[in-house]
Amino acid sequence: MTPSRDPTAAGVAEAAAKVSAILPPTPLLPLEIEGQTIWCKAESLQPIGAFKIRGGWHRLTALSDEDRARGVVGVSSGNHAQGVAWAARRLGIAATIVMPVDAPAVKLANTRALGAEVVLYDRPGGEDRDEVAGRVCAERGATLVHAYGDPWVIEGQGSAGIEIARQMDALGVGGPDLIVAPCGGGGLTAGLALACPDAAVIPVEPEGWDDVCRSLASGTIQSVAADAPPTPCDSLQTMATRPINFRVLRERCPFGLVVTPAEVRAAQRLAFERLHLVIEPGGAAALAAVLAGKVDLKPRTAVVLTGGNTDAADFAAVLTGDN
Amino acid sequence: MTPSRDPTAAGVAEAAAKVSAILPPTPLLPLEIEGQTIWCKAESLQPIGAFKIRGGWHRLTALSDEDRARGVVGVSSGNHAQGVAWAARRLGIAATIVMPVDAPAVKLANTRALGAEVVLYDRPGGEDRDEVAGRVCAERGATLVHAYGDPWVIEGQGSAGIEIARQMDALGVGGPDLIVAPCGGGGLTAGLALACPDAAVIPVEPEGWDDVCRSLASGTIQSVAADAPPTPCDSLQTMATRPINFRVLRERCPFGLVVTPAEVRAAQRLAFERLHLVIEPGGAAALAAVLAGKVDLKPRTAVVLTGGNTDAADFAAVLTGDN
Repeated sequence: MTPSRDPTAAGVAEAAAKVSAILPPTPLLPLEIEGQTIWCKAESLQPIGAFKIRGGWHRLTALSDEDRARGVVGVSSGNHAQGVAWAARRLGIAATIVMPVDAPAVKLANTRALGAEVVLYDRPGGEDRDEVAGRVCAERGATLVHAYGDPWVIEGQGSAGIEIARQMDALGVGGPDLIVAPCGGGGLTAGLALACPDAAVIPVEPEGWDDVCRSLASGTIQSVAADAPPTPCDSLQTMATRPINFRVLRERCPFGLVVTPAEVRAAQRLAFERLHLVIEPGGAAALAAVLAGKVDLKPRTAVVLTGGNTDAADFAAVLTGDN
Repeated sequence: MTPSRDPTAAGVAEAAAKVSAILPPTPLLPLEIEGQTIWCKAESLQPIGAFKIRGGWHRLTALSDEDRARGVVGVSSGNHAQGVAWAARRLGIAATIVMPVDAPAVKLANTRALGAEVVLYDRPGGEDRDEVAGRVCAERGATLVHAYGDPWVIEGQGSAGIEIARQMDALGVGGPDLIVAPCGGGGLTAGLALACPDAAVIPVEPEGWDDVCRSLASGTIQSVAADAPPTPCDSLQTMATRPINFRVLRERCPFGLVVTPAEVRAAQRLAFERLHLVIEPGGAAALAAVLAGKVDLKPRTAVVLTGGNTDAADFAAVLTGDN
């Protein structure tokens, strides 16, 4: 599937208007780190527990009546699944979600609870999720809603940046000069870059899954190694970004950063203690980079906490230091 | 100390204006319970992790310059302590907080981090906290800021009700017809009753610490039994409400409800899973009553999640069912 167009700043503005018509802005919480305030965008408080509701809504509302009638297919370890399922239910569109068998149980359960049909694929066994999704689309004539390689999805995620800028303005801080965000396929980071042209944008990836970092360093799209180590950041497990994302990222992001599982856990614990938020591992990656001292903070730094969908046992182990 | 006046609805409105000038409203999150939406006020997302910042701010800003110079004293297991300390630091007032030796470590640490001097008293050993506080006040000429038996504190806490009503109005839901709130000494519930004259207000207390429930039933102020069982709800451990609170409560609350430790844990787990919020035991009491089916829900029901200050090990045990 070739996307029909590149995402634009105007598209992000349109997405922000559509999102704000149905969802109140998520809070932007101050956090003092060594005497400096950074602004944490709590996207974990979206109704589906993650920012993906933005892209799902912007994409599905842009479908023709004919396309809506044939349904949509999403591919996701969970958060994009819930974003598409939430938007589909609200619009009366049938949604099928292709999810890995090893997705967190809470994400599988929540996707089904939103009324979507879940088709599992064998990620650990090496089954190709795009192949599975393509087969479902062909069978049903449904529209594939890609998790990041889609102009509407990118624009939708970018609406978070519009909210951040508005909220910092309203607080008298002024718009962000730096946004640090977790990065899987680069949908959110590309959207933020379009939303906030005056801010530096730093994507943060988990150790071993740093394809965007390496792509930015080399100037061409790189993939995750076939023998990549396991990561607790299930929501950031993407093999490679796509040209539609990379064309934005390479213009706006000189580099990306990598965080270790221990750094991610430390960030989850800090968010628990100081912000009283449940943040999933992937959702804490950007905060982890800040806490680890890997980011040169600017006076108006925003950090996106992208999601909070994590299993109770996993989160308990993070809190007690058992994993 | 006899309070100088009763709290008023006009005082709540003034408090709401003062609070909204320095703190953005906390989110009001929808939660679907058996097909009905209830509105959860996430006071755990205040900068100190609890609603007590409201009363502290309204009380301390009302002090004369002379009184400010002599400092303030608070008595608290933690959340009121942080509320007073936060307001005092912002206003340049010296704060001394009398806290029980068995307060959650995170609350002790956070109170000290806010610059307050902490004086410990031996709660398990039966030492009287009011006596300790009176001694400190006498020594220093400081003003006692009572955790609930104070008109400004009551009005300040009531500002949460003004926010709830505004937020539900903005969502097109209409003002609340029922507010369910955790109850310790009755500062918050009295404030909510003044803030929202058209809503029923139900205070919820932990098992064994149901003095307000029994006071409402008998028509006179009752105390917690000397041999009351331990409760996980440290923030709701008050021996008795005060006349200034009870005069409001007996007019507006026909009854209160009691929740068990198991019901509280179930509510904490639901808030974790569905709202991605960290809620302390006492903060989850009202939600616990709703989940346990003890509340006759009305079409526009709001539930206050009062705080999120809980130790990591305790919260992990709640998540894994180990306590």
